[in-house]
Amino acid sequence: MADIQRLSLNQATVQNWSVKEAVDGCVRHGIPSIALWRHKIHEAGLQQSAQHVRDAGLHVSSVCRGGMFVAPSAAERKERIMDNFRAVEEAKELNADSLVMVVGASTEVPIADARQMVADGLAELVPYAREQGVKIGLEPLHPMYAGDRSVLNTIDQSLAMAAPYAADEVGLILDVFHIWWDPTVFEQIQRAAGRIFGFHACDWLVPLPDTLLGRGVMGDGVIDNHALRLAVDAAGYNGPIEVEIFNQALWDTPGDDVLNKVVERFTALV
Amino acid sequence: MADIQRLSLNQATVQNWSVKEAVDGCVRHGIPSIALWRHKIHEAGLQQSAQHVRDAGLHVSSVCRGGMFVAPSAAERKERIMDNFRAVEEAKELNADSLVMVVGASTEVPIADARQMVADGLAELVPYAREQGVKIGLEPLHPMYAGDRSVLNTIDQSLAMAAPYAADEVGLILDVFHIWWDPTVFEQIQRAAGRIFGFHACDWLVPLPDTLLGRGVMGDGVIDNHALRLAVDAAGYNGPIEVEIFNQALWDTPGDDVLNKVVERFTALV
Repeated sequence: MADIQRLSLNQATVQNWSVKEAVDGCVRHGIPSIALWRHKIHEAGLQQSAQHVRDAGLHVSSVCRGGMFVAPSAAERKERIMDNFRAVEEAKELNADSLVMVVGASTEVPIADARQMVADGLAELVPYAREQGVKIGLEPLHPMYAGDRSVLNTIDQSLAMAAPYAADEVGLILDVFHIWWDPTVFEQIQRAAGRIFGFHACDWLVPLPDTLLGRGVMGDGVIDNHALRLAVDAAGYNGPIEVEIFNQALWDTPGDDVLNKVVERFTALV
Repeated sequence: MADIQRLSLNQATVQNWSVKEAVDGCVRHGIPSIALWRHKIHEAGLQQSAQHVRDAGLHVSSVCRGGMFVAPSAAERKERIMDNFRAVEEAKELNADSLVMVVGASTEVPIADARQMVADGLAELVPYAREQGVKIGLEPLHPMYAGDRSVLNTIDQSLAMAAPYAADEVGLILDVFHIWWDPTVFEQIQRAAGRIFGFHACDWLVPLPDTLLGRGVMGDGVIDNHALRLAVDAAGYNGPIEVEIFNQALWDTPGDDVLNKVVERFTALV
């Protein structure tokens, strides 16, 4: 099973903690990497956040998140690009492995047009990210989010979106929650070899408590995290594995209890 | 837009109506076809249900549903097969275009094994269906149901499952709710040419009110029903188009109001 040295705490799992609290939690529980969210970084201050992770000797697996390229007006889309530029700067300052992209969706934009807006947005963003030395990680989201959160919904589609760019510039963030159901997931992971920038573990609960805040800890649902992790490894990925769990019940649990469970399940099941 | 002559009322849309009430509703609203659910058929009686639709001069587009092939024990799987045999007999008695399959899923069965159980179940069922002259319609369900309802989640996967059988024996039921998000949906529909046994219209609401009972009437969500209908037509399908909407709020509305809206939206938007 997975070595704790590959574990990264995605801060979303302990939503009530600040950057400092999450960093300290990682140190207490022997977790070597962390993924930070921008709203938490802004609360703590960028320099301060960078200082916290440096002082603790943590590695930053990703900054969450940029993207949201889909909007009905050109002015709004431009504003989103400008915000992505700032996200690139934050990822650079934190020395993150990549800046994660959740690409967006809008009820006001037909899905085919929305997908073109994502391609157009990347074309504006990637040159700046390249200049700053920040990698862009496209995260395909589960198809149930295609109407309101992301029109990027499969690995193959994400690979096509990344194809115009170098393999060390634009890659994929693979989260088991989003991809586990796909009848061709193992073939698609193989095709993603060389473009995998991140891997996320969690679980799919049955019944699903909530489309957004209903993820489970590994072992509480139906996903074979281990099989998917081995597939991602076989495709050449050997970087951090984030545990990212949006779950209201988990957020209502003391953070140290959450981390105990995350470490236990990670080392036993991933 | 679609001719009302292609409209079929899937009985699930007016959940509170009996077979007789749904049949009478179709007659009042000029809807020429109907799709019946087995629990409603059993309530009314099979012969009686067949008599109702014959007396009203309605066409039966489908019987919903068989399938549910996935279960941890061989005994339980055998029981499900026996139930599918009865469903075939019901579809034959009602002279339905096809028997719809929702193939099942189980938290106790790994997804790859579950998919094999579906293939094995079909191998037992299809010879009997062939003998009875009943077509088997495989319905790929949205990936959000892969954990509890159906491990058949894309058109391509369904085509592979149908491939061992003749094109007039095992085909696909395409419901926009399940397939609209797919980045390759139009190519997949094209590949399904000759195997399309049914097409369902409805809508995907944002935000999704409920994973099961949150479907919308065409025009209330983000799906381009017209574009998908044209694609299905272009692939050679010219049969009935069912409107199948699981929605608690709709079920709490008087049935005639529901049918008024269904007819209006169908002829304007599908």
